Amino acid sequence: MGFPMAGHLARAGHQVCVYNRTAARAEAWAEEFGHRAARTPREAAQNADIVFACVGNDDDLRGVTLGDDGAFAGMKPGAVFVDHTTASATVARELHARATERSIAFMDAPVSGGQSGAVEGILSIMCGGDAATFEKVEPIMSAYARTATLIGDVGAGQLAKMVNQICVAGILQGLAEGLAFGRAAGLDMHKVLSVISKGAAQSWQMENRGATMLEDNFDFGFAVDWMRKDLGLVMEEARRNGATLPTTALIDQFYGDLQKMGGGRWDTSSLIKRL
Amino acid sequence: MGFPMAGHLARAGHQVCVYNRTAARAEAWAEEFGHRAARTPREAAQNADIVFACVGNDDDLRGVTLGDDGAFAGMKPGAVFVDHTTASATVARELHARATERSIAFMDAPVSGGQSGAVEGILSIMCGGDAATFEKVEPIMSAYARTATLIGDVGAGQLAKMVNQICVAGILQGLAEGLAFGRAAGLDMHKVLSVISKGAAQSWQMENRGATMLEDNFDFGFAVDWMRKDLGLVMEEARRNGATLPTTALIDQFYGDLQKMGGGRWDTSSLIKRL
Repeated sequence: MGFPMAGHLARAGHQVCVYNRTAARAEAWAEEFGHRAARTPREAAQNADIVFACVGNDDDLRGVTLGDDGAFAGMKPGAVFVDHTTASATVARELHARATERSIAFMDAPVSGGQSGAVEGILSIMCGGDAATFEKVEPIMSAYARTATLIGDVGAGQLAKMVNQICVAGILQGLAEGLAFGRAAGLDMHKVLSVISKGAAQSWQMENRGATMLEDNFDFGFAVDWMRKDLGLVMEEARRNGATLPTTALIDQFYGDLQKMGGGRWDTSSLIKRL
Repeated sequence: MGFPMAGHLARAGHQVCVYNRTAARAEAWAEEFGHRAARTPREAAQNADIVFACVGNDDDLRGVTLGDDGAFAGMKPGAVFVDHTTASATVARELHARATERSIAFMDAPVSGGQSGAVEGILSIMCGGDAATFEKVEPIMSAYARTATLIGDVGAGQLAKMVNQICVAGILQGLAEGLAFGRAAGLDMHKVLSVISKGAAQSWQMENRGATMLEDNFDFGFAVDWMRKDLGLVMEEARRNGATLPTTALIDQFYGDLQKMGGGRWDTSSLIKRL
């Protein structure tokens, strides 16, 4: 997702220097957009006013920020580090503390909208940090975002993204059970969807995934492996804050079933395949 | 719900005769709209071209259709019986058979949209029956419906309504867990909802029940007792058609918890109260 996001920044007129663990990807980007690629996160972050990261998980994030080659080592005091990774609130708070030691501002800013949202530049961004930092970066992020909202202090962006994933999990499992039931009952499910999508059962998922679920088409979208990672963050955080998540815990297990079925790269709507 | 639905029929210029088990309600209706009230379903159905029913459950439905005082005994051959009750597909097929013996057409036609949809005349109707019957009654039902769709044979309307309720259950439980989690995490949930309702977690329920759930306001809407009844129909039908409904089965139990908490009349979004 970083590839098209950095592309939007370059097209908006910003000076961009990119880093990717796969050097060939960074070089391909640099060639396409006529900007620089760096060999380390530190080099990419040198002299930047704002550094944006979008990696896989907490450990990947520590890998590109901390240590001698990490972005923090190259950043100047007063610069801002914005993390677009969906990661834990804990790592956001940890990196915020490390950034503060170097007079670097930190904002967690997980995104919603997926690969296509990044390509089209219409992501939704949930931010955690202070208002001054948000005001500084919000106009820049508008190059690839439809909306960016400051939810609260550092970590609040990650926690809001977790709320989003909990809601999505419930919707998708309900939709999967509904479609599987209707099919078992012999109904024309396209007809049924066209009716119930107008009322109290309506959801973005029903409108955008109902038809593909019926076609057994899961070769696109947001992968099961990523959802499993996100629900892992959710369950860990819930253990800490005491929230009771009976169906989310169950659906997390169902996603584990899909991984065992070889469906780690299937779209999250593939829950219907285990019914 | 029958009160406003019959009112729309009267206002549309149809000759209407009503029956209610509570005679005072039927008389109040007759007085308000200047049409007749009958003492038995049979009397109400006498000479009617179309008879509409909307009662509580399978047994209520048998009570108003069968027997000496039932509607079927009064109906003329060629007339149509339309059932708006959310009932089992089994009772729809059973009553269809009994109607056919008397040359009466039968259509199951459960509605979606609730009390407010009935009052405003904007219900969605899911129909099961034959095309000729549907074409005869569809223009009449448009007095209180925004859409009516023929899903398939007798019973298909009920089965489609069940698909709807399965989807709603999953959405509401996911939403309840998401809001409970966000609250436990100390987030400004109104802010979170305003962001996530624009993306993949969006649902009619989130848009129409998210705020009231946060306000602990459940004194309105579609009651837990009715949802419990509907999920009972779902689980019974699933036992028959072999569909696997792990979270629907669990959420059905959660609604049972709410009934024990004294919440039988609360809105279905009250799932959050047991988290």
